[in-house]
Amino acid sequence: MNTTWEDFYAKHPPPQDFNQNEILLKTFVERQLKKDKKVVLVTSGGTTIPLEHNTVRFVDNFSAGTRGSVSTEYFLENGYAVIFMYRLNSLEPFSRHFKGQKLLDMIDVSEQNGKSTITVLPQYKEKLMKIFCKYKEILNQDKLLQVTFTTLSEYLWLLRAACQALACLKNKAILYLAAAVSDFYIPSNELSIHKISSSGPPTISLQLVPKILAPLVSLWVPQAFVVSFKLETDENLLISKARNALNKYKHNLVIANMLQTRKQQVTIVSQEDNYIISLTSDQLNKGEEIEQSIVNVLIDKHQTFIQSSEKCN
Amino acid sequence: MNTTWEDFYAKHPPPQDFNQNEILLKTFVERQLKKDKKVVLVTSGGTTIPLEHNTVRFVDNFSAGTRGSVSTEYFLENGYAVIFMYRLNSLEPFSRHFKGQKLLDMIDVSEQNGKSTITVLPQYKEKLMKIFCKYKEILNQDKLLQVTFTTLSEYLWLLRAACQALACLKNKAILYLAAAVSDFYIPSNELSIHKISSSGPPTISLQLVPKILAPLVSLWVPQAFVVSFKLETDENLLISKARNALNKYKHNLVIANMLQTRKQQVTIVSQEDNYIISLTSDQLNKGEEIEQSIVNVLIDKHQTFIQSSEKCN
Repeated sequence: MNTTWEDFYAKHPPPQDFNQNEILLKTFVERQLKKDKKVVLVTSGGTTIPLEHNTVRFVDNFSAGTRGSVSTEYFLENGYAVIFMYRLNSLEPFSRHFKGQKLLDMIDVSEQNGKSTITVLPQYKEKLMKIFCKYKEILNQDKLLQVTFTTLSEYLWLLRAACQALACLKNKAILYLAAAVSDFYIPSNELSIHKISSSGPPTISLQLVPKILAPLVSLWVPQAFVVSFKLETDENLLISKARNALNKYKHNLVIANMLQTRKQQVTIVSQEDNYIISLTSDQLNKGEEIEQSIVNVLIDKHQTFIQSSEKCN
Repeated sequence: MNTTWEDFYAKHPPPQDFNQNEILLKTFVERQLKKDKKVVLVTSGGTTIPLEHNTVRFVDNFSAGTRGSVSTEYFLENGYAVIFMYRLNSLEPFSRHFKGQKLLDMIDVSEQNGKSTITVLPQYKEKLMKIFCKYKEILNQDKLLQVTFTTLSEYLWLLRAACQALACLKNKAILYLAAAVSDFYIPSNELSIHKISSSGPPTISLQLVPKILAPLVSLWVPQAFVVSFKLETDENLLISKARNALNKYKHNLVIANMLQTRKQQVTIVSQEDNYIISLTSDQLNKGEEIEQSIVNVLIDKHQTFIQSSEKCN
């Protein structure tokens, strides 16, 4: 028998930093509400399913957090405030441009009048300056809140708290659920306490994670604009699965993408139609990002959604 | 029946970039041999076990790559050349100091004579300068080679190639096997081709990974100084498991550590004794790193090992 979402929350205690995050979320949304801002919740990165209480091993979902972190920058550029709810150590907006050794290759130390100074190499200066100025502006304007999760259970607790904070914004909130959330988990009471011994090969029995879109759409943020994602590796299933989800949960859009081509093409599936967005190889090579087009389309659709829902009232 | 290591290599094809990495490893070691350098192979980060051929989901091992990336810096500081074999996107030496948003918080843009310049905030300048200079020096001196893996199979292919390259250094090579390698895997022919459907909860059957230390010690680098790691969550098993490994594989040292206290205490287990290294909370708060002490002890032991093996010849 599958677990219900009520059961899941009843059986998994909230994460340690939960109260603190709940307050951050609530006060951030209140400040945006006062400024009459639209707010998008972007979820990003994969969730883990621990195989042991003292976790050494876990099942993970493939996700670097690219979709979410890139989209966040474009939402901010378009005037939205963003709650960026992301997997710890996955990509973050702005800093994603300077991963790993890249930073050290961008700078140089020079001697001037016997004093060493650090300088940015000329070819990187403009890019670094641009990103830095945007980042500081966003911080100064209080338009970005970042909160982190690692496990599936942490994700689900944080997601509900974010929804409860956002509900007061009504149709001005977008939920952009780009995180790669596990479909399966191991119930807490079946977890091994210590590292699984390697004396014999274990069998891991997984349970289905309750479909959280159901209470999210119908109970937590019933007036918000909700966008979910569908990632597949089998082209034949992609659009039908996306449309099934839309019919089942009655939310606004599903962004359908294939694992292999997700940076080059997505299909935005709505009740009305399938809308394909794609980049040419030439555009990709120039560094254009498909998230810019996705966000532009969404903002249009969100605007139409706000107008039509206000007409109804 | 458990797979043998020969079987594993026979059934899993080499990764795509394997030939290229093989050449990099071979030529790097040859250059060090000419300079009469000691070389350490540091493995770092966790391996993944894909659950699907088109991988969306995988089982992963907890590891940020701290032990390996930090130790690499200390080996370099002590004159060793290092092959840093690490999990893609895990921590790397030097750049590990500037993770995530940290960089953007370290710099500022100032206006001078109508020109914008990027400057490092004074409180970070010394640290950044020091790390940058070390990094450039290491690159200029050709003392560091970095190669990456993601899956268990990529790790095993790369490890054997590194060993084969290092064999010619004889007792001048250290193997410092800090990577968190999976004990289990799903045989390639039992993998699902596409993303596992979430219509029913799956059961995952895992097989034991062949113990690669056996051929490594007895066949691939029989004259090298080999150090393995043992991570446990149950204190009662830690030392006995480390000692069992040492008796079974006949290598030089096992570094035993508990998941919960691994940054504060390790036990270096040798045929002769157990040697505990620990940091006080005060030392930890000051930013001291236990890897510095581990590396110092290892270098001493490696020196003794070289002298005693040369006496035998």
